Amino acid sequence: MAEQANTEMTTSHDKRMGRLLLVPNTLDLGCPDPATGEAPDLQQVLPLGVMREAARIGHWIAENAKTTRAFLKRVDKVAPLSQPLQALMIEELPRPIKGGKAAKGEKDAKGEAATQASVFAKLLDPARAGHDIGLISEAGLPGVADPGAAVVQAAHKAGIPVVPMAGPSSLVLALAGSGLHGQSFAFVGYLPTDGSQRAQRIRELEQLSRRAHQTQLVIETPYRNPALWQALLQHLQPQTLLNVSCGLTLSQGFTLTDTVARWRQRELNLPTDVPAVFAWLAA
Amino acid sequence: MAEQANTEMTTSHDKRMGRLLLVPNTLDLGCPDPATGEAPDLQQVLPLGVMREAARIGHWIAENAKTTRAFLKRVDKVAPLSQPLQALMIEELPRPIKGGKAAKGEKDAKGEAATQASVFAKLLDPARAGHDIGLISEAGLPGVADPGAAVVQAAHKAGIPVVPMAGPSSLVLALAGSGLHGQSFAFVGYLPTDGSQRAQRIRELEQLSRRAHQTQLVIETPYRNPALWQALLQHLQPQTLLNVSCGLTLSQGFTLTDTVARWRQRELNLPTDVPAVFAWLAA
Repeated sequence: MAEQANTEMTTSHDKRMGRLLLVPNTLDLGCPDPATGEAPDLQQVLPLGVMREAARIGHWIAENAKTTRAFLKRVDKVAPLSQPLQALMIEELPRPIKGGKAAKGEKDAKGEAATQASVFAKLLDPARAGHDIGLISEAGLPGVADPGAAVVQAAHKAGIPVVPMAGPSSLVLALAGSGLHGQSFAFVGYLPTDGSQRAQRIRELEQLSRRAHQTQLVIETPYRNPALWQALLQHLQPQTLLNVSCGLTLSQGFTLTDTVARWRQRELNLPTDVPAVFAWLAA
Repeated sequence: MAEQANTEMTTSHDKRMGRLLLVPNTLDLGCPDPATGEAPDLQQVLPLGVMREAARIGHWIAENAKTTRAFLKRVDKVAPLSQPLQALMIEELPRPIKGGKAAKGEKDAKGEAATQASVFAKLLDPARAGHDIGLISEAGLPGVADPGAAVVQAAHKAGIPVVPMAGPSSLVLALAGSGLHGQSFAFVGYLPTDGSQRAQRIRELEQLSRRAHQTQLVIETPYRNPALWQALLQHLQPQTLLNVSCGLTLSQGFTLTDTVARWRQRELNLPTDVPAVFAWLAA
């Protein structure tokens, strides 16, 4: 690197301040592999270096403390934890307001976010005291399609170094696996559940895809996978390329792309208990 | 998984057909770590399972055969290659037409893409003969912000199973590291290099970010990092949150987020030889 980042923040950065490490989780949600009946091997999807860092961390911020302990038990088998599981401090993220504006990604979510900012700032106290903190999500990278972003933003505000670590992300794996345009893409979260609103949104996103030559990605609550799939087949244009990626990195995972016209001729029974990502690119 | 994917393709799928494995690369471009003078340890960023798969693959499709051999030499130190490097078949992807419509992500790029489709289909011959093929990019995941997507699309068309494997992606690491809205985001590639066109596009993307509460991500050729940074500081609104992530997963990497107003008061000399991702979210 020819020049170094030289900022007020980094130059005045207290060397004894801890960092916020963004620890990737697997995409298996801790479920056993149906092929073997056992939890999938972490080494299939997580770098050893990441597991070693995770094994060293004493302070955690998580969506769920119980599943984080289960994850760390799996890490321990590959990279022994530096302290007993019971000794780890695991703080849970405040739950997003159910059906609130933040959950829907609406613009007015900023009010809610501001209210929660002080809560997030408090979660970072261990870093101010010199301890690294691990931020972990239920699946994939924290801050991507989950409530972790607010704590990352609070870390930046407090001048706490943020270190994202490599691991699986269902969205980007789905994009890669789709073969759809990867030089311009958008993830827009969930579609409305109301039928006519959903239809309207699907058509709107298809127009956007056509105009901007941009791949559109959405996710759905697993039990609604088949309903969303039918809605996409019904409302997208026949020549639009449509991909579904389901359970990527799992032994039973798959990613399939075809035109909507051909999908209408093919039978596809999507599982209702495995997360899926849906992506399309208008012709 | 309660139900299995049941499609014409998978039910009629010839078991002897090979798969297209999407092999993640590091983000270090094979450069030595300035801190140690040595190539960074692959185990910091790649799962062991991915390296074992890579070590087994005899047929490759790559952007660059030489750098792919260098990558496989590094893999060999962790997971011994199943055959000598010289015995591997490495086919290079046809170069995208420089400054062509595909490179710019324009809508009319589809004509160009169609012309190249037969070339991509031919690259997949080894899979038809029963061999797994590895698709690899110069950095990160193939098919994301690189020309690999067309070969993935050709694989889907030919009924060749596509298997994306977990690894680092600079875009999604930057998004996670930014702390900006991760429930809705768009990657739009490169901005125009012409000053006034670039200014217009920055304002346009900021409006889009405000309207859709959507994080916008762009990349730039490294030597233009400082110029893009200055343009962003000049043309974005003061309250917009702006992130730059540079060299993530490298020892000298960093990710920083602040408001444009505060960035205008801070000094930041971006390196001109390390890839960066720029992201913003309008207030």
